[in-house]
Amino acid sequence: MKPPDLGSTAMSSSIERKSPSLRLAQGARTRRQILSTAADVASAEGLEGLSIGRLASRLGMSKSGLFAHFGSKEQLQLATVDAAAEVFENRVVEPSTKAKPGIARLSAMLEAWQTYIQKCGYRGGCFFAAASAEFDGRPGPVRGRIAEWTGTWLRLIEQEAGQAKALGHLRADIDAAQLAFELHAFVQEANWAAQLLDDRDAFDRAARAVGRRLEDAATAKGREILAHD
Amino acid sequence: MKPPDLGSTAMSSSIERKSPSLRLAQGARTRRQILSTAADVASAEGLEGLSIGRLASRLGMSKSGLFAHFGSKEQLQLATVDAAAEVFENRVVEPSTKAKPGIARLSAMLEAWQTYIQKCGYRGGCFFAAASAEFDGRPGPVRGRIAEWTGTWLRLIEQEAGQAKALGHLRADIDAAQLAFELHAFVQEANWAAQLLDDRDAFDRAARAVGRRLEDAATAKGREILAHD
Repeated sequence: MKPPDLGSTAMSSSIERKSPSLRLAQGARTRRQILSTAADVASAEGLEGLSIGRLASRLGMSKSGLFAHFGSKEQLQLATVDAAAEVFENRVVEPSTKAKPGIARLSAMLEAWQTYIQKCGYRGGCFFAAASAEFDGRPGPVRGRIAEWTGTWLRLIEQEAGQAKALGHLRADIDAAQLAFELHAFVQEANWAAQLLDDRDAFDRAARAVGRRLEDAATAKGREILAHD
Repeated sequence: MKPPDLGSTAMSSSIERKSPSLRLAQGARTRRQILSTAADVASAEGLEGLSIGRLASRLGMSKSGLFAHFGSKEQLQLATVDAAAEVFENRVVEPSTKAKPGIARLSAMLEAWQTYIQKCGYRGGCFFAAASAEFDGRPGPVRGRIAEWTGTWLRLIEQEAGQAKALGHLRADIDAAQLAFELHAFVQEANWAAQLLDDRDAFDRAARAVGRRLEDAATAKGREILAHD
Protein backbone atom coordinates (compact mmCIF):
# COMPACT_ATOMS: atom_id res chain seq x y z
CA MET A 1 0.00 0.00 0.00
CA LYS A 2 1.28 3.45 -0.92
CA PRO A 3 1.89 5.71 2.10
CA PRO A 4 -0.36 8.80 2.24
CA ASP A 5 1.14 12.00 0.82
CA LEU A 6 1.71 14.15 3.88
CA GLY A 7 2.74 17.00 1.62
CA SER A 8 -0.89 17.63 0.60
CA THR A 9 -2.68 19.78 3.15
CA ALA A 10 -6.18 18.63 2.22
CA MET A 11 -5.13 15.03 2.50
CA SER A 12 -3.23 15.39 5.72
CA SER A 13 -6.00 17.35 7.43
CA SER A 14 -8.47 14.58 6.56
CA ILE A 15 -5.98 12.04 7.87
CA GLU A 16 -5.56 14.04 11.05
CA ARG A 17 -9.18 13.46 11.98
CA LYS A 18 -8.76 9.73 11.60
CA SER A 19 -5.40 8.65 12.98
CA PRO A 20 -3.50 9.78 16.09
CA SER A 21 -0.24 8.33 14.76
CA LEU A 22 -0.54 10.45 11.65
CA ARG A 23 -1.20 13.46 13.84
CA LEU A 24 2.25 12.75 15.27
CA ALA A 25 3.64 12.78 11.74
CA GLN A 26 1.93 16.15 11.25
CA GLY A 27 3.61 17.37 14.45
CA ALA A 28 6.96 16.22 13.14
CA ARG A 29 6.29 18.08 9.90
CA THR A 30 5.42 21.29 11.79
CA ARG A 31 8.63 20.87 13.75
CA ARG A 32 10.59 20.49 10.52
CA GLN A 33 8.99 23.63 9.10
CA ILE A 34 9.82 25.57 12.27
CA LEU A 35 13.42 24.39 12.17
CA SER A 36 13.79 25.20 8.49
CA THR A 37 12.74 28.80 9.19
CA ALA A 38 14.98 28.80 12.27
CA ALA A 39 17.98 27.74 10.17
CA ASP A 40 17.26 30.52 7.67
CA VAL A 41 16.96 33.17 10.41
CA ALA A 42 20.10 31.85 12.13
CA SER A 43 22.21 31.85 8.97
CA ALA A 44 21.37 35.52 8.31
CA GLU A 45 20.98 36.96 11.81
CA GLY A 46 22.83 34.47 13.98
CA LEU A 47 21.80 31.55 16.17
CA GLU A 48 22.06 33.78 19.22
CA GLY A 49 19.39 36.10 17.84
CA LEU A 50 17.08 33.10 17.52
CA SER A 51 14.80 33.78 20.47
CA ILE A 52 11.56 31.83 20.79
CA GLY A 53 9.61 35.12 20.75
CA ARG A 54 11.23 36.31 17.54
CA LEU A 55 10.78 33.00 15.76
CA ALA A 56 7.14 32.80 16.91
CA SER A 57 6.31 36.19 15.42
CA ARG A 58 8.14 35.26 12.20
CA LEU A 59 6.12 32.05 11.89
CA GLY A 60 2.84 33.58 13.05
CA MET A 61 2.71 31.08 15.93
CA SER A 62 2.20 31.61 19.63
CA LYS A 63 5.25 31.65 21.90
CA SER A 64 3.64 28.96 24.04
CA GLY A 65 3.11 26.78 20.95
CA LEU A 66 6.78 27.06 20.07
CA PHE A 67 7.76 26.53 23.68
CA ALA A 68 5.86 23.23 23.64
CA HIS A 69 8.16 22.11 20.82
CA PHE A 70 11.50 23.21 22.28
CA GLY A 71 11.34 24.26 25.92
CA SER A 72 14.31 26.66 25.91
CA LYS A 73 16.36 28.84 23.62
CA GLU A 74 19.32 26.47 23.91
CA GLN A 75 17.16 23.48 23.01
CA LEU A 76 15.86 25.43 20.01
CA GLN A 77 19.44 26.27 18.96
CA LEU A 78 20.55 22.64 19.30
CA ALA A 79 17.51 21.40 17.38
CA THR A 80 18.22 23.93 14.63
CA VAL A 81 21.83 22.77 14.32
CA ASP A 82 20.70 19.13 14.17
CA ALA A 83 18.03 19.93 11.59
CA ALA A 84 20.57 21.73 9.40
CA ALA A 85 22.86 18.70 9.74
CA GLU A 86 20.03 16.40 8.67
CA VAL A 87 19.39 18.50 5.56
CA PHE A 88 23.13 18.44 4.82
CA GLU A 89 23.18 14.66 5.26
CA ASN A 90 20.24 14.21 2.85
CA ARG A 91 21.43 16.66 0.23
CA VAL A 92 25.19 16.25 0.28
CA VAL A 93 26.44 13.17 2.13
CA GLU A 94 23.83 10.65 1.02
CA PRO A 95 23.79 11.45 -2.74
CA SER A 96 27.57 11.35 -2.97
CA THR A 97 27.65 7.77 -1.66
CA LYS A 98 26.20 6.80 -5.04
CA ALA A 99 29.57 7.52 -6.65
CA LYS A 100 32.13 4.71 -6.56
CA PRO A 101 34.47 4.67 -3.53
CA GLY A 102 37.77 6.51 -3.96
CA ILE A 103 38.57 9.56 -6.04
CA ALA A 104 35.16 9.54 -7.82
CA ARG A 105 33.31 9.73 -4.50
CA LEU A 106 35.74 12.31 -3.12
CA SER A 107 35.10 14.49 -6.15
CA ALA A 108 31.33 13.90 -5.90
CA MET A 109 31.31 14.94 -2.23
CA LEU A 110 32.96 18.27 -2.99
CA GLU A 111 30.73 18.91 -5.98
CA ALA A 112 27.57 18.09 -4.03
CA TRP A 113 28.71 20.39 -1.22
CA GLN A 114 29.28 23.31 -3.61
CA THR A 115 25.95 22.78 -5.35
CA TYR A 116 24.23 22.62 -1.98
CA ILE A 117 25.75 25.90 -0.75
CA GLN A 118 24.79 27.66 -3.96
CA LYS A 119 21.21 26.44 -3.76
CA CYS A 120 20.64 26.11 -0.03
CA GLY A 121 18.35 29.11 0.08
CA TYR A 122 19.43 30.33 3.50
CA ARG A 123 19.82 34.10 3.32
CA GLY A 124 23.12 34.01 5.20
CA GLY A 125 24.66 31.31 2.99
CA CYS A 126 25.90 28.01 4.36
CA PHE A 127 24.33 27.51 7.79
CA PHE A 128 27.42 25.86 9.25
CA ALA A 129 29.87 28.50 8.03
CA ALA A 130 27.76 31.21 9.68
CA ALA A 131 27.19 29.21 12.86
CA SER A 132 30.88 28.22 13.12
CA ALA A 133 32.11 31.79 13.13
CA GLU A 134 29.38 32.90 15.49
CA PHE A 135 29.98 30.22 18.12
CA ASP A 136 33.68 29.42 17.91
CA GLY A 137 34.40 31.85 20.75
CA ARG A 138 31.46 30.79 22.95
CA PRO A 139 32.11 27.55 24.82
CA GLY A 140 29.03 25.43 25.53
CA PRO A 141 26.77 22.72 24.09
CA VAL A 142 25.81 24.68 20.95
CA ARG A 143 29.44 25.26 19.95
CA GLY A 144 30.12 21.58 20.72
CA ARG A 145 27.33 20.42 18.44
CA ILE A 146 28.42 22.68 15.56
CA ALA A 147 32.01 21.47 15.94
CA GLU A 148 30.80 17.85 16.00
CA TRP A 149 28.88 18.12 12.71
CA THR A 150 31.38 20.23 10.79
CA GLY A 151 34.27 18.12 12.12
CA THR A 152 32.46 14.97 10.99
CA TRP A 153 32.14 16.33 7.45
CA LEU A 154 35.84 17.24 7.32
CA ARG A 155 36.71 13.74 8.57
CA LEU A 156 34.47 12.13 5.95
CA ILE A 157 36.44 14.00 3.26
CA GLU A 158 39.69 12.87 4.86
CA GLN A 159 38.50 9.24 5.08
CA GLU A 160 37.50 9.24 1.43
CA ALA A 161 40.90 10.67 0.50
CA GLY A 162 42.47 7.84 2.53
CA GLN A 163 40.29 5.35 0.69
CA ALA A 164 41.28 6.85 -2.67
CA LYS A 165 44.92 6.42 -1.68
CA ALA A 166 44.36 2.79 -0.63
CA LEU A 167 42.67 2.11 -3.97
CA GLY A 168 45.63 3.56 -5.86
CA HIS A 169 43.68 6.61 -7.10
CA LEU A 170 45.90 9.07 -5.20
CA ARG A 171 49.70 9.02 -5.00
CA ALA A 172 51.24 7.16 -2.05
CA ASP A 173 52.99 10.34 -0.81
CA ILE A 174 49.71 12.25 -0.43
CA ASP A 175 48.77 13.13 3.17
CA ALA A 176 44.99 12.56 3.33
CA ALA A 177 44.43 15.03 6.19
CA GLN A 178 46.42 17.75 4.41
CA LEU A 179 44.52 17.16 1.16
CA ALA A 180 41.17 17.25 2.98
CA PHE A 181 42.17 20.55 4.66
CA GLU A 182 42.95 22.13 1.29
CA LEU A 183 39.86 20.88 -0.56
CA HIS A 184 37.60 21.88 2.33
CA ALA A 185 39.26 25.33 2.40
CA PHE A 186 38.37 26.02 -1.25
CA VAL A 187 34.65 25.42 -0.73
CA GLN A 188 34.50 27.44 2.49
CA GLU A 189 36.33 30.28 0.73
CA ALA A 190 33.78 30.23 -2.10
CA ASN A 191 30.94 30.56 0.38
CA TRP A 192 32.73 33.48 2.05
CA ALA A 193 33.55 35.33 -1.18
CA ALA A 194 30.10 34.78 -2.69
CA GLN A 195 28.27 35.87 0.46
CA LEU A 196 30.33 38.82 1.61
CA LEU A 197 31.98 40.12 -1.56
CA ASP A 198 29.16 39.13 -3.94
CA ASP A 199 31.85 37.42 -6.01
CA ARG A 200 30.02 35.63 -8.81
CA ASP A 201 33.13 33.73 -9.88
CA ALA A 202 33.77 32.30 -6.42
CA PHE A 203 32.24 28.87 -7.05
CA ASP A 204 33.93 28.53 -10.43
CA ARG A 205 37.23 29.35 -8.76
CA ALA A 206 36.60 26.76 -6.04
CA ALA A 207 35.69 24.11 -8.63
CA ARG A 208 38.89 24.88 -10.59
CA ALA A 209 40.97 24.75 -7.41
CA VAL A 210 39.44 21.43 -6.33
CA GLY A 211 39.85 19.95 -9.84
CA ARG A 212 43.47 21.02 -10.16
CA ARG A 213 44.37 19.81 -6.64
CA LEU A 214 42.79 16.40 -7.26
CA GLU A 215 44.54 16.09 -10.64
CA ASP A 216 47.88 16.93 -9.01
CA ALA A 217 47.38 14.37 -6.27
CA ALA A 218 46.02 11.62 -8.52
CA THR A 219 47.83 8.63 -10.01
CA ALA A 220 47.36 7.80 -13.71
CA LYS A 221 44.52 5.47 -12.66
CA GLY A 222 42.94 8.24 -10.59
CA ARG A 223 43.16 10.73 -13.45
CA GLU A 224 41.50 8.25 -15.74
CA ILE A 225 38.59 7.88 -13.31
CA LEU A 226 38.27 11.68 -13.00
CA ALA A 227 38.27 12.08 -16.80
CA HIS A 228 35.40 9.58 -17.19
CA ASP A 229 33.47 10.96 -14.26
CA MET B 1 63.02 66.94 22.12
CA LYS B 2 61.75 63.48 22.99
CA PRO B 3 57.93 63.23 23.05
CA PRO B 4 56.47 62.47 26.49
CA ASP B 5 55.66 58.82 27.22
CA LEU B 6 51.88 58.68 27.14
CA GLY B 7 52.04 55.10 28.35
CA SER B 8 52.89 56.20 31.90
CA THR B 9 49.79 57.14 33.86
CA ALA B 10 51.59 59.35 36.36
CA MET B 11 53.27 61.24 33.56
CA SER B 12 50.20 61.63 31.42
CA SER B 13 48.09 62.86 34.33
CA SER B 14 50.71 65.56 35.05
CA ILE B 15 50.69 66.45 31.34
CA GLU B 16 46.92 66.63 31.36
CA ARG B 17 47.02 69.54 33.77
CA LYS B 18 49.38 71.42 31.48
CA SER B 19 48.39 70.93 27.85
CA PRO B 20 44.95 70.76 26.17
CA SER B 21 46.44 69.20 23.02
CA LEU B 22 47.86 66.33 25.04
CA ARG B 23 44.48 65.88 26.64
CA LEU B 24 43.26 65.22 23.09
CA ALA B 25 45.96 62.57 22.71
CA GLN B 26 44.76 61.03 25.95
CA GLY B 27 41.22 61.00 24.52
CA ALA B 28 42.46 59.26 21.40
CA ARG B 29 44.19 56.69 23.57
CA THR B 30 41.01 56.06 25.58
CA ARG B 31 39.15 55.65 22.31
CA ARG B 32 41.73 53.12 21.12
CA GLN B 33 41.42 51.16 24.36
CA ILE B 34 37.64 51.15 24.06
CA LEU B 35 37.83 49.91 20.47
CA SER B 36 40.37 47.23 21.30
CA THR B 37 37.99 45.81 23.93
CA ALA B 38 35.11 46.24 21.49
CA ALA B 39 36.96 44.19 18.84
CA ASP B 40 37.63 41.45 21.40
CA VAL B 41 33.98 41.34 22.51
CA ALA B 42 32.80 41.42 18.89
CA SER B 43 35.08 38.59 17.73
CA ALA B 44 33.79 36.29 20.50
CA GLU B 45 30.17 37.40 20.90
CA GLY B 46 29.42 39.19 17.64
CA LEU B 47 29.36 42.82 16.52
CA GLU B 48 25.60 42.82 16.88
CA GLY B 49 25.89 42.02 20.59
CA LEU B 50 28.12 45.06 20.98
CA SER B 51 25.68 47.42 22.66
CA ILE B 52 26.95 50.62 24.25
CA GLY B 53 25.49 49.50 27.60
CA ARG B 54 27.25 46.14 27.52
CA LEU B 55 30.57 47.60 26.50
CA ALA B 56 30.30 50.32 29.18
CA SER B 57 29.80 47.75 31.92
CA ARG B 58 32.68 45.66 30.56
CA LEU B 59 34.99 48.70 30.60
CA GLY B 60 33.70 50.08 33.90
CA MET B 61 32.69 53.30 32.13
CA SER B 62 29.42 55.19 32.12
CA LYS B 63 27.06 54.73 29.17
CA SER B 64 27.00 58.49 28.66
CA GLY B 65 30.83 58.54 28.58
CA LEU B 66 30.83 55.91 25.84
CA PHE B 67 28.00 57.65 24.03
CA ALA B 68 30.11 60.83 23.90
CA HIS B 69 32.69 58.83 21.95
CA PHE B 70 30.39 57.07 19.47
CA GLY B 71 26.83 58.38 19.47
CA SER B 72 25.09 55.19 18.28
CA LYS B 73 25.50 51.45 18.15
CA GLU B 74 26.09 51.56 14.40
CA GLN B 75 28.78 54.21 14.79
CA LEU B 76 30.41 52.06 17.47
CA GLN B 77 30.27 49.02 15.16
CA LEU B 78 31.78 50.97 12.26
CA ALA B 79 34.51 52.42 14.49
CA THR B 80 35.30 48.92 15.78
CA VAL B 81 35.64 47.57 12.23
CA ASP B 82 37.92 50.48 11.27
CA ALA B 83 40.02 50.05 14.41
CA ALA B 84 40.47 46.33 13.68
CA ALA B 85 41.49 47.25 10.12
CA GLU B 86 44.06 49.73 11.45
CA VAL B 87 45.57 47.05 13.69
CA PHE B 88 45.65 44.68 10.70
CA GLU B 89 47.33 47.34 8.58
CA ASN B 90 50.02 47.94 11.25
CA ARG B 91 50.68 44.31 12.08
CA VAL B 92 50.27 42.59 8.72
CA VAL B 93 50.24 44.89 5.72
CA GLU B 94 52.91 47.37 6.75
CA PRO B 95 55.59 44.87 7.94
CA SER B 96 55.25 42.76 4.79
CA THR B 97 56.09 45.75 2.57
CA LYS B 98 59.64 45.38 3.93
CA ALA B 99 60.07 42.23 1.84
CA LYS B 100 61.13 42.72 -1.79
CA PRO B 101 58.28 43.09 -4.31
CA GLY B 102 57.14 39.87 -6.00
CA ILE B 103 57.08 36.35 -4.64
CA ALA B 104 59.08 37.27 -1.49
CA ARG B 105 56.52 39.89 -0.50
CA LEU B 106 53.59 37.63 -1.41
CA SER B 107 55.02 34.94 0.85
CA ALA B 108 55.73 37.52 3.61
CA MET B 109 52.13 38.80 3.46
CA LEU B 110 50.70 35.32 4.00
CA GLU B 111 53.16 34.53 6.76
CA ALA B 112 52.48 37.82 8.57
CA TRP B 113 48.73 37.17 8.30
CA GLN B 114 49.04 33.70 9.83
CA THR B 115 51.27 34.93 12.64
CA TYR B 116 48.84 37.74 13.34
CA ILE B 117 45.81 35.45 13.56
CA GLN B 118 47.66 33.09 15.91
CA LYS B 119 48.68 35.95 18.20
CA CYS B 120 45.87 38.43 17.76
CA GLY B 121 44.50 37.76 21.23
CA TYR B 122 40.84 38.20 20.29
CA ARG B 123 38.89 35.43 22.00
CA GLY B 124 36.91 34.68 18.86
CA GLY B 125 39.94 34.47 16.58
CA CYS B 126 40.40 36.67 13.56
CA PHE B 127 38.09 39.66 13.93
CA PHE B 128 37.31 39.86 10.22
CA ALA B 129 36.50 36.15 9.83
CA ALA B 130 34.00 36.39 12.68
CA ALA B 131 32.55 39.69 11.49
CA SER B 132 32.29 38.47 7.85
CA ALA B 133 30.19 35.45 8.72
CA GLU B 134 28.04 37.47 11.11
CA PHE B 135 27.22 40.28 8.68
CA ASP B 136 27.27 38.69 5.23
CA GLY B 137 23.50 38.19 5.38
CA ARG B 138 22.70 41.65 6.84
CA PRO B 139 22.81 44.39 4.23
CA GLY B 140 23.84 47.83 5.50
CA PRO B 141 26.83 50.07 6.21
CA VAL B 142 28.52 47.66 8.66
CA ARG B 143 28.48 44.78 6.16
CA GLY B 144 29.73 47.24 3.51
CA ARG B 145 32.68 48.30 5.64
CA ILE B 146 33.66 44.70 6.50
CA ALA B 147 33.46 43.76 2.80
CA GLU B 148 35.56 46.81 1.89
CA TRP B 149 38.43 45.95 4.25
CA THR B 150 38.48 42.19 3.66
CA GLY B 151 38.08 42.70 -0.09
CA THR B 152 41.00 45.14 -0.04
CA TRP B 153 43.24 42.56 1.62
CA LEU B 154 42.29 39.89 -0.92
CA ARG B 155 43.02 42.36 -3.74
CA LEU B 156 46.42 43.23 -2.22
CA ILE B 157 47.31 39.53 -2.33
CA GLU B 158 46.10 39.35 -5.93
CA GLN B 159 48.07 42.46 -6.92
CA GLU B 160 51.25 41.09 -5.38
CA ALA B 161 50.70 37.81 -7.25
CA GLY B 162 50.33 39.88 -10.44
CA GLN B 163 53.54 41.72 -9.62
CA ALA B 164 55.34 38.41 -8.96
CA LYS B 165 54.20 37.25 -12.40
CA ALA B 166 55.37 40.46 -14.06
CA LEU B 167 58.77 40.08 -12.37
CA GLY B 168 59.09 36.51 -13.68
CA HIS B 169 58.75 34.92 -10.22
CA LEU B 170 55.53 33.13 -11.12
CA ARG B 171 54.80 31.21 -14.32
CA ALA B 172 53.13 33.13 -17.14
CA ASP B 173 50.12 30.75 -17.16
CA ILE B 174 49.27 31.51 -13.51
CA ASP B 175 45.97 33.36 -12.98
CA ALA B 176 46.74 35.87 -10.19
CA ALA B 177 43.11 36.08 -8.98
CA GLN B 178 42.80 32.29 -8.83
CA LEU B 179 46.09 31.97 -6.94
CA ALA B 180 45.06 34.70 -4.48
CA PHE B 181 41.73 32.90 -3.88
CA GLU B 182 43.54 29.65 -3.04
CA LEU B 183 46.21 31.17 -0.79
CA HIS B 184 43.63 33.28 1.05
CA ALA B 185 41.45 30.16 1.48
CA PHE B 186 44.23 28.25 3.29
CA VAL B 187 44.69 30.94 5.94
CA GLN B 188 40.96 31.40 6.52
CA GLU B 189 40.59 27.62 6.85
CA ALA B 190 43.35 27.54 9.48
CA ASN B 191 41.55 30.19 11.52
CA TRP B 192 38.31 28.19 11.25
CA ALA B 193 39.85 24.84 12.18
CA ALA B 194 41.92 26.27 15.04
CA GLN B 195 39.01 28.21 16.51
CA LEU B 196 36.13 25.77 16.15
CA LEU B 197 37.80 22.36 16.08
CA ASP B 198 40.75 23.28 18.35
CA ASP B 199 42.96 21.82 15.64
CA ARG B 200 46.53 22.53 16.76
CA ASP B 201 47.97 21.50 13.39
CA ALA B 202 45.79 23.93 11.42
CA PHE B 203 48.40 26.66 10.99
CA ASP B 204 51.13 24.16 10.07
CA ARG B 205 48.78 22.73 7.46
CA ALA B 206 48.05 26.19 6.08
CA ALA B 207 51.77 27.03 5.94
CA ARG B 208 52.49 23.76 4.08
CA ALA B 209 49.60 24.41 1.67
CA VAL B 210 50.76 27.98 0.97
CA GLY B 211 54.38 26.87 0.53
CA ARG B 212 53.49 24.04 -1.84
CA ARG B 213 51.13 26.20 -3.89
CA LEU B 214 53.73 28.96 -4.27
CA GLU B 215 56.41 26.42 -5.23
CA ASP B 216 54.10 24.91 -7.84
CA ALA B 217 53.29 28.31 -9.32
CA ALA B 218 56.87 29.64 -9.23
CA THR B 219 59.43 29.82 -12.00
CA ALA B 220 63.01 28.65 -11.34
CA LYS B 221 63.84 32.27 -10.43
CA GLY B 222 60.86 32.45 -8.07
CA ARG B 223 61.84 29.17 -6.37
CA GLU B 224 65.35 30.46 -5.87
CA ILE B 225 63.99 33.57 -4.13
CA LEU B 226 61.72 31.43 -1.91
CA ALA B 227 64.63 29.17 -0.97
CA HIS B 228 66.74 32.13 0.16
CA ASP B 229 63.88 33.84 1.94
